[in-house]
Amino acid sequence: MNEVFDISNESKELKRNDQAYLLHPWGSLSENTNDEPMIIESANGVYVTDSDRNQYLDAIGGMWCMTLGYGNEDLALTMQEQAVRMPYYTPFGSMSNIPAVQLAKKLAALAPGDLNIVHYTNSGSTAVDSAIRFCHYYFNATGKESKKIILSRKDAYHGSTYLGASLSGKAWDRTCFQYMDTLVHHLSSPHSYRRPPHIAEENFCNYLLNEMEEAIQQLGADNIACFIAEPILASGGVIVPPNGYHQRAQELMKRHNILFVSDEVVTGFGRLGHFFSSNIHFGLDPDIIITAKGLTSGYAPLGAIILSEHLAREIKETHLKNPVFTNGYTYSGHPIACAVALKNIELMEKMALCEHVRSIGPYFIERLQELEKYPIVGDIRGHHLMACIEFRASNAYSPIPTLEDIAIAQAVDTHCQRLGLLVRPYESLCILSPPLIINEQQIDSMINILQNAIEETMKEMD
Amino acid sequence: MNEVFDISNESKELKRNDQAYLLHPWGSLSENTNDEPMIIESANGVYVTDSDRNQYLDAIGGMWCMTLGYGNEDLALTMQEQAVRMPYYTPFGSMSNIPAVQLAKKLAALAPGDLNIVHYTNSGSTAVDSAIRFCHYYFNATGKESKKIILSRKDAYHGSTYLGASLSGKAWDRTCFQYMDTLVHHLSSPHSYRRPPHIAEENFCNYLLNEMEEAIQQLGADNIACFIAEPILASGGVIVPPNGYHQRAQELMKRHNILFVSDEVVTGFGRLGHFFSSNIHFGLDPDIIITAKGLTSGYAPLGAIILSEHLAREIKETHLKNPVFTNGYTYSGHPIACAVALKNIELMEKMALCEHVRSIGPYFIERLQELEKYPIVGDIRGHHLMACIEFRASNAYSPIPTLEDIAIAQAVDTHCQRLGLLVRPYESLCILSPPLIINEQQIDSMINILQNAIEETMKEMD
Repeated sequence: MNEVFDISNESKELKRNDQAYLLHPWGSLSENTNDEPMIIESANGVYVTDSDRNQYLDAIGGMWCMTLGYGNEDLALTMQEQAVRMPYYTPFGSMSNIPAVQLAKKLAALAPGDLNIVHYTNSGSTAVDSAIRFCHYYFNATGKESKKIILSRKDAYHGSTYLGASLSGKAWDRTCFQYMDTLVHHLSSPHSYRRPPHIAEENFCNYLLNEMEEAIQQLGADNIACFIAEPILASGGVIVPPNGYHQRAQELMKRHNILFVSDEVVTGFGRLGHFFSSNIHFGLDPDIIITAKGLTSGYAPLGAIILSEHLAREIKETHLKNPVFTNGYTYSGHPIACAVALKNIELMEKMALCEHVRSIGPYFIERLQELEKYPIVGDIRGHHLMACIEFRASNAYSPIPTLEDIAIAQAVDTHCQRLGLLVRPYESLCILSPPLIINEQQIDSMINILQNAIEETMKEMD
Repeated sequence: MNEVFDISNESKELKRNDQAYLLHPWGSLSENTNDEPMIIESANGVYVTDSDRNQYLDAIGGMWCMTLGYGNEDLALTMQEQAVRMPYYTPFGSMSNIPAVQLAKKLAALAPGDLNIVHYTNSGSTAVDSAIRFCHYYFNATGKESKKIILSRKDAYHGSTYLGASLSGKAWDRTCFQYMDTLVHHLSSPHSYRRPPHIAEENFCNYLLNEMEEAIQQLGADNIACFIAEPILASGGVIVPPNGYHQRAQELMKRHNILFVSDEVVTGFGRLGHFFSSNIHFGLDPDIIITAKGLTSGYAPLGAIILSEHLAREIKETHLKNPVFTNGYTYSGHPIACAVALKNIELMEKMALCEHVRSIGPYFIERLQELEKYPIVGDIRGHHLMACIEFRASNAYSPIPTLEDIAIAQAVDTHCQRLGLLVRPYESLCILSPPLIINEQQIDSMINILQNAIEETMKEMD
């Protein structure tokens, strides 16, 4: 009895302190925060346990990033050993460390084409910021100073720096902040489910490409630096673009000397069954790939941009007097984070984890599609271990989720949580991106809980 | 013999791979990179060892951040234990983890005044970016939408996101990148050594404050959101502003409802003998403090902004419908990084490390000042364990370091390196920020090597 009493008191104090001292990402600043914090205390494999000793199957993989599973002792030991051997030294200028060099070589080998030059950051957001800054550097250095505008898309998510948040195009995310306007242009989202009602599905790709071409005409190709795109829009709602969309976009960009930046923060590192998906799944040959999240399986903050050699060569050939790349962070190429990433890749290869995802991914999507039978389920979509359920309150068309749609997702989430599954709703969505080590039995258990939660929600709506 | 041969080959290959695959922060994109990489392989206490088995005393503390010293086994064990227990979970919305909550409470206790609300990031750069975004959020939310401009200073360094790099004002750092113009205004640097030659030293503070007041008049206080300032400008050259500068600036800002953001990425966590220096050393009562670097002693990427409760309260009182703070990162409040920071603070308190710095800091500065006797030394300045030597090729006035000044610093650096001391020159400076655990004997050894290096450099100039 005593222990239970203590646990409960300790948990309550943690929650009080959380509310008193912490402003979370996407936390509320309102007077009456009605969301009680959930404090994850321990975790193992695909399961996490909160401070009230409730255990949950983690259907979101931390936040897209937990790939090898929780409590991996090899990764933990790697951190300790590197911390004792060499915990940090500056990466600036000509200073380097062994894990950073070895990981760069490995990333160059894994990345497609001539993407062989690695520039580290601490996150996906800072990698996006650095990638765009590289595009500006490149065009300024090569005498095309007018090429400045960045093409992005509605529903895109490219992080939370001032620049990254400005590139992002999710309607509900625009709050009281300041956003860039003149340098960013948002194209339509390739969101078939919420496409304008007068466009037939088979014409949607043409519609998007026509709009893209018109935007380039209107803004002037000479004013556009790059197009940034997630191969599948992740937080925007696991939006899989129509077939051919990426390749046609790339052709268009190449024709207008607009760089193609592929944001693989979510789609990389095994989630779609390969270390990178741009080329294998989408036929892309990007100028820059952005990676983060799964790169360290979430155990350490790390991001990177992987640059095409031809871009670096063109800058070299300008014979600029002092082309110093004055971008980067104290913790760029942090030796512990890089050591974790190297061990993560080694373990993924040893466990044949990409192969596992390629084999279990289709099963996951197939089982999920069974949920389409429920009327509050508007759409199920995804690719291997990246999927979502989009809820709808009615059949009426809306270009963005309505508050009623969002309320349904929240109700389903609450039931899932009670039943031992964490899905954390995003707007009108349940986003599902379980750890890559998930097995068939655990997938079945997820589907069962989702079915129950949806049925409970429907009952409450009656 | 065999072993020596192997080490040398291995080291050569590492350097080749570094040059082939890595673009470092502030790395060169030119065809003929003449700087051979130095690869730090192992480290202990205040010493680091490169891949050619040369050992050096580390005079720069990694990069301002290595405070507890290299190879700390307690920090290493903390990482491993937290990684096994709970390596990561999303910090978004109402989700939390124990080390993040405990650290937030501790930071609130250490920070001055009502700075009690912690918002985590992954670095100093992202903390700067988030702090400015908070200022914009605050004024938009409280109905003062026109307050957008950020006052910064020449010689400031505020990181490397698009926003942070735009706030930074170091002349040599402006390369081919794109920078923000309309939202950022740069005031003069409080750099007494390079102040305009017609201003007497005793009038310099008045000069700076008059300029500040005029800038506010000209831009309009209604258009200005905040003033961001390092208490001592760090990478810009350890620039200690004139007495009274900060307090007078703060009065001025308060009068015009301009928020004061104190960037303590370098000056915090013991470098000046206290966890935070804004209040104790500079009489400041900032609205936001930015911290990073020493927070984890460099062992894990982590940054934070610490916000005043009155700002959060004002946002609450607007009764905005849905004041969600849509800013933050996947790795905000990373449990391993927060556990490291907590252990770091615990060890600093147990070792009475701040007290050690307060006692050894004056000895360090005093010994450094002996170097003023050399004609190529233009200035010695600093505060406790944050100092620099500014070299000069001639007595002629220049508002920024000349290429000749820079060449001298590089020559001194080369000699120091040969003699077993890493100072890594910054422009015309040797910046000195050794690990906080440094003792008198190690300081004496640093000074001896610096003397030799300066004398060797002078001989070569003859």
